[in-house]
Amino acid sequence: MQLSDLGEDGLLRELQARKLVHGITNDAALVSGLVVTQDALVEGVHFRLDRLSWRDLGWRAAAVNLSDLAASGAAPEALVVTLGAPAATDLADVIELYAGIAEPGVPVVGGDTTSAPQLVLSVTALGRSARIPGRAGAQPGDALVVTGPLGGAGAAFRRDGCVRPPLRLDEGRELAAHAHALMDISDGLGVDCGRLAAASGCALVIELADVPLAEGAEIGDLGFGEDYELLAAVAEPGRFPVVGRCAAGAGVTFLRDGQPAELAGWQHFT
Amino acid sequence: MQLSDLGEDGLLRELQARKLVHGITNDAALVSGLVVTQDALVEGVHFRLDRLSWRDLGWRAAAVNLSDLAASGAAPEALVVTLGAPAATDLADVIELYAGIAEPGVPVVGGDTTSAPQLVLSVTALGRSARIPGRAGAQPGDALVVTGPLGGAGAAFRRDGCVRPPLRLDEGRELAAHAHALMDISDGLGVDCGRLAAASGCALVIELADVPLAEGAEIGDLGFGEDYELLAAVAEPGRFPVVGRCAAGAGVTFLRDGQPAELAGWQHFT
Repeated sequence: MQLSDLGEDGLLRELQARKLVHGITNDAALVSGLVVTQDALVEGVHFRLDRLSWRDLGWRAAAVNLSDLAASGAAPEALVVTLGAPAATDLADVIELYAGIAEPGVPVVGGDTTSAPQLVLSVTALGRSARIPGRAGAQPGDALVVTGPLGGAGAAFRRDGCVRPPLRLDEGRELAAHAHALMDISDGLGVDCGRLAAASGCALVIELADVPLAEGAEIGDLGFGEDYELLAAVAEPGRFPVVGRCAAGAGVTFLRDGQPAELAGWQHFT
Repeated sequence: MQLSDLGEDGLLRELQARKLVHGITNDAALVSGLVVTQDALVEGVHFRLDRLSWRDLGWRAAAVNLSDLAASGAAPEALVVTLGAPAATDLADVIELYAGIAEPGVPVVGGDTTSAPQLVLSVTALGRSARIPGRAGAQPGDALVVTGPLGGAGAAFRRDGCVRPPLRLDEGRELAAHAHALMDISDGLGVDCGRLAAASGCALVIELADVPLAEGAEIGDLGFGEDYELLAAVAEPGRFPVVGRCAAGAGVTFLRDGQPAELAGWQHFT
């Protein structure tokens, strides 16, 4: 069987079944009280330099990892950065890249640089969290909230552009204090709701009319992912917009003004 | 200026001068009391799958990071692994790879898998150390010791082969308790001695006749690197073989039976 037939979640299940990886239930691990996340960006797979600047690429590499920390309610302490780059890469571009990585204000304290046929960025973010809600605690009756508008990444992609992922570290700590479940929306609202529902053993009902859309975004853009807002199941929504609720059952149901609706582009991931 | 003109140390200096990276003085960082190392292996740059098996590649990815922990006197706690692989990669090969990563016995607790045009492995190792000697404390009069035979990787390479890097975690903790300086030999005895001498502000005198050679290795193989034995400057060598001494001055001098000698393949790195 090839990796393309398995997908990332399928590969993880195969490795866990053989006890080759341990305790990976979401995108962050806990080591000696430290929350550790790691994500890689590969040129041609995750980004194209004709669509974003070196500085924006640096921001993105930091932000997607800090998003995993935010989803763990963690305060960031440090980044470790490995850069693989072709030997002909210009120093000025690499300096812009690291300037973008530094922009969120979390110090880069270590890493590795190496030659590679195309750009590869692997970033590890480390932080501390007072409470990590995880994905498995959502309960029927919980409200589902998000931390900001969705669809902006997909809308930008349609226009051959690229938006900077937001930083939701403050919101993450605020929600982590009381949320029953918390994660970031990196693969699209449908896919990530499906993961939360499966982990929690409950159903999620999303009201599409209540989902805040980014400027220029349409409902179809929700399936693109890469919005990096947080999704939480909470007893009290507080200041965050409610997009749905948890219910007894399984799976994800989308409603539009109370009627069953389709959200294009996510069904084949379930 | 291109990265190929700078080298890894040169790039690090440029980034440090701009305060874009902090506190990177060797291959490990300290975050909240946790030693964190990160190294990447890129297919075609660091390895070729016609020279080593998937399992050996996994061992190597773990071992080169654990070597950085050993050089920090750290006991390992966890690995975080990011794998980039072509979509057509076979699951059985990836399972072998992770089996090799697991062989040293340090749990893989997190990471990321992604599509990539060729294999890319980025591993972060995390551990705890009671004392990190660093590279800057060697003093004139110290003995220089190594933890095992050198040249094996270079000798294997000459024969189109590849040897597994050793694990020196126990030796690292033993040496870290008292060593004035401690590092691993990853880029060749000359290059790494040059780094230790520069960081400590002293001279190193190596007696080549005293350097333990791996089976089949010649003196010329010492410049190849990738032996991953530890190099320490100590007041008392204890059970470890002495290969030289620290002296007042700067730079690295090689002797053979007391007479100045050349060690091929390292001068252009100084």
